[in-house]
Parts: sequence; structure tokens; C-alpha cells
Amino acid sequence: MSLLVVGSVALDTIRTPYGEAREILGGSATFFSVTASWFVPVKVVAVVGEDFSAEHLQVFASRSIDTSGLEQVPGRTFRWRGEYSGSMNEARTLETQLNVFDRFTPKIGAAQRECPFVFLGNIDPTLQLHVRQQLTDPQLVACDTMNFWIQGKLEELKKTLAAVDVLVINEGEARLLGGQQNLKQAATIVRKLGPRTLVVKRGEYGVTLFAEDSVFSAPAYPLDQVQDPTGAGDTFAGGFMGHLARTGDLGASNLRRAVVYGSVMASFAVEEFGLTRLLRLTPTEIEARYREFKNLTHFDA
Amino acid sequence: MSLLVVGSVALDTIRTPYGEAREILGGSATFFSVTASWFVPVKVVAVVGEDFSAEHLQVFASRSIDTSGLEQVPGRTFRWRGEYSGSMNEARTLETQLNVFDRFTPKIGAAQRECPFVFLGNIDPTLQLHVRQQLTDPQLVACDTMNFWIQGKLEELKKTLAAVDVLVINEGEARLLGGQQNLKQAATIVRKLGPRTLVVKRGEYGVTLFAEDSVFSAPAYPLDQVQDPTGAGDTFAGGFMGHLARTGDLGASNLRRAVVYGSVMASFAVEEFGLTRLLRLTPTEIEARYREFKNLTHFDA
Repeated sequence: MSLLVVGSVALDTIRTPYGEAREILGGSATFFSVTASWFVPVKVVAVVGEDFSAEHLQVFASRSIDTSGLEQVPGRTFRWRGEYSGSMNEARTLETQLNVFDRFTPKIGAAQRECPFVFLGNIDPTLQLHVRQQLTDPQLVACDTMNFWIQGKLEELKKTLAAVDVLVINEGEARLLGGQQNLKQAATIVRKLGPRTLVVKRGEYGVTLFAEDSVFSAPAYPLDQVQDPTGAGDTFAGGFMGHLARTGDLGASNLRRAVVYGSVMASFAVEEFGLTRLLRLTPTEIEARYREFKNLTHFDA
Repeated sequence: MSLLVVGSVALDTIRTPYGEAREILGGSATFFSVTASWFVPVKVVAVVGEDFSAEHLQVFASRSIDTSGLEQVPGRTFRWRGEYSGSMNEARTLETQLNVFDRFTPKIGAAQRECPFVFLGNIDPTLQLHVRQQLTDPQLVACDTMNFWIQGKLEELKKTLAAVDVLVINEGEARLLGGQQNLKQAATIVRKLGPRTLVVKRGEYGVTLFAEDSVFSAPAYPLDQVQDPTGAGDTFAGGFMGHLARTGDLGASNLRRAVVYGSVMASFAVEEFGLTRLLRLTPTEIEARYREFKNLTHFDA
């Protein structure tokens, strides 16, 4: 089943202990769609500027991503510059130029409206709700958000949360949104705001899924080298939603499998800068790492 | 099979967001032995002062712990005062009075020497090695250490590490000892120092086991309330070593089970202050939580 993502397309300049990359293709919609394209057909809704080149577009084309909703407008594409050091768990943002993203209003066409699986990337919650309301009859809508909206647009965000099935956020955001240091208590409060499923991303510590009556924890894959963590969260979401859309199965067991597929994809993403590793994956590699996750976590009852 | 622990017995004064406890029984040897006593007969080697009361001793007796190696000497018992706040991942030490622990020289008698399973709690690495050298023919020797010794007595610590099978330390200590931010790389370096098995404690993020050719990650049990994290690491070690001593099985699968039993015991310990919860456990509760860990981590291949 097809999958729609609404989010950002950016040009990232990144420095990590392993090197530097200048103006490489990034953004939440980019990482999400490239990742999910390994599972299902993907449609992207985002905005880029006049400087967005044929080469950039070719990246989406190479993964057969439907870019009919990728609007090109006057101005420059969203740019982000950041660096990672130490344990590389958090980026230090050096510069953000919103550019055309500042006036982004997602336009949802007939084809997008019908998508059964939808991911609302981290954008203004008012825009997320606007998109949600245009969807015809989605099977599953997930969204992301961030501290900036939790602190600045909480009432708007609550309206969005009331209208989605799944929230995918990081641990600090879950604690902030739930108003609790204890993650389990925070999760209970957040799920009462709307999303029946909460996926908490914990960086190098993996992911914890809070759903119905059960909690599921998956570790991150232990890598010898993390070259660039940029986009890991959106890559996780792409694998998670990709697997759900591929199977159409929203049962508890399959949600857990989806968390592992998300973790598998994120583990590949961070091995190299930007989209490099995600673009030269093979289905065999994805399945092999899924089995490695099983081996990483299995113990006898 | 019987299990020997050498470490500290302390009187702890603890403040957390959930309350305060004054001069309650604590210390690495205490948490370890009370925990391991749920699995096997335990012998403890430690030192206490003149203020150590019959009531304190009764705690060990209630768990049938062999205290013939618990030496009472002139002076006051080791005292520690600390508090936890926020996410409660780390204690803030307000006061440490080493007292009689400052001149502690573990005395290993005939009965202790023969113990097949031995845990060297976090004490001066010179003393750990001294104990190790007196053991007759142990099946498995594990030890703990801390930043203080890694930074202050590295050469002595390396001699100890060369003589043990398992090292159980926290994540920051593993990174410091391995000289690497990347945990997998740090683990490889640490294991080359001697211990073929490295168990890395990651607090609320669980435990990662590095052994032979495999890595195993277990999450922490998600609790609604952590009242007092004091002793969680030694409790983990007590469950880990307790299960290994109970089964006598040092195979890869059983090491994983031992990690889960350690995590099970630590999850109980932090539910209430000090030893409270550990002292009123039942074997049924331990097995039930083991199964909950299975449910927390299971996904279909």
C-alpha cells in the first residue's frame, strides 16, 4: 500500500569526527521517503527552492519516489548546518536558514489524499492538522514533532495529536510533552492526548514502543563506527511506516516488527554521511540485519 | 554452587524525590549478597565498625548469608550520603566517610577460598588481585571497578583485569577504560585487557553484554516509579552471578539468561528504598518478571 510523507527537504552541511559534507540532500521527507521506498511506493509532499537541481531530483527518481507533490518555488532551499562530537548523540546546530520552508503550505492533491498510510514529518502542528483533515480515509497516520512546537504551539499540537494514530518522538520530547521525568508515566499521559501508539526514539539506546497494554523495547544496533547520525530519526520512521504499509497489518506483533525494521534502517543510515548508505542498500542486507537484531536481543524463556 | 562476594558494607543516607532514608544498610557486598541469596548460598567478605548492630547482622542472617568473613573492627562503619533528582540516573554524593573501610584488607579463609564463583566488588584493584590470587580454582571470577581506580590506579587495575573472567562496569567507565567514545570499540579494547566477557550497565537503558563473538542487549524494565536507584548495579551483578552459580552453565545462552536475571533483580531493587524490596521478594515474583522481560523484548523473526 502506498505511503505519503509530508515534511522538509533540506541541504545539510555536516561536520562529524569522521569528516565533513557540504550541502548534501537531507530533510525529514527525504530521509523518510528514501528509506520507505525500500518497502512500498512513496509519495512526497515538500517544498524546495530554485537552487534545487536535477541531480537532487534524480535521487528521488532513483528510488521511484513520486515527487509530483514536491513543489518548487522562488527562493532558496531550506539549509541546515550542524556538527556532532563526543558520543554524537546530539547535533549542535550552527545555522538554520528556513528559506522557502518558512512559507511552506503543504498542498495535498487527489493522489496524495487517497494514501492509506501517512507520515506527518516535524512541521508546524497547524500544517500537520491541515494535511490530516484533507486525507480521505487513511488506515494509519503517524506524526513527529519537536520541543519547539511543544513549547511554542502546545494547543495546536494537541489538536493534531488528537487526530493521529501514532506519535514518533525522541525521549526528551516525550518527557517534555508528558510533563514527567519517568518515561512510562510520560507515555501514559501522551497517549491520552490522542495517539494510541507512542514510539520513543532513544538514539544509541534504541526505541521503546508504548501500545495498548504492552511495552516493547528494541536496542540500537551496536556499530563500530557512527559517521553521521543526521536523519536517523526520520529513517527510523521510514522503516517503521514502510513495513506497516507493506504488510497492511496493524496488529501488536507487527508493530514490534515495524519497530525493528525502523531500527534496522536507522542503523544503516548512520554508517555513512547523509543518504549514501541508504541509497546503496539491498533487500538482502535489510533482511540480514533484521536477523542480526533478533540475535542481538534473543534469550531463552 | 556457592558464591563469594568481597566488597563494602555501608550505612547509606539517601534523598530522592520520593523521600529520605537515614543510615540504612547498603554497600556493594550487601546488595550483591542479598540479591544472590535468592539463587545460591552466599558468603560475604567485608568490614564493619563497632556501630554495626545485631539488627544489621540479622538482615544477612534472614537471607542465610554466611557472614563468617564479615570482620568487625574498632571504628565506625563506612557511610555514604547522596541524593538523586531529575531522571535519577546519577547520584550526587554529598558525603563519603570511609571510616573502617579505609583500612580494609579482605581476609579470605579456607571456606571462602574454595568458592567456585566469586565477585570482587568495587574496591582497590590491588585488593581485588590479592583476593583473586588466594582463590583455589574458581570457575568464574567477576569484578567491578570505577572511574576513581581507572584514573588513579590503572596499572594495578590492568593486573586485576588480566586475572578475571568477567568485568561488570557502567557505560561511562567502559568508555573511559577503553579510551573510546564508541562503546563497541571500547568493549573490544577492554576485553583485550583480560575479561573475556564484558557486561556494560547503562542504567535506565539496560545492559549490553559483550562476549566471544556476540553482543546481547537487554533493556531495563520500564517502571512507573523508581524510588531509589542506590545499589542497582550491585543488585544486577548479584542476579547475574547468582544465576550463573545456580546453573553452573557458562555457555553463551546462559550468560544471556544471567543478564536478564540481573536486570530482573535490579528492577525490583529500585522500586523501594535500600534493600526493602529485595528482602520481601518471592521466587514466583522473580520468575514472573523474567517472563515479563521476555514479553518486553520479543518480536517474531
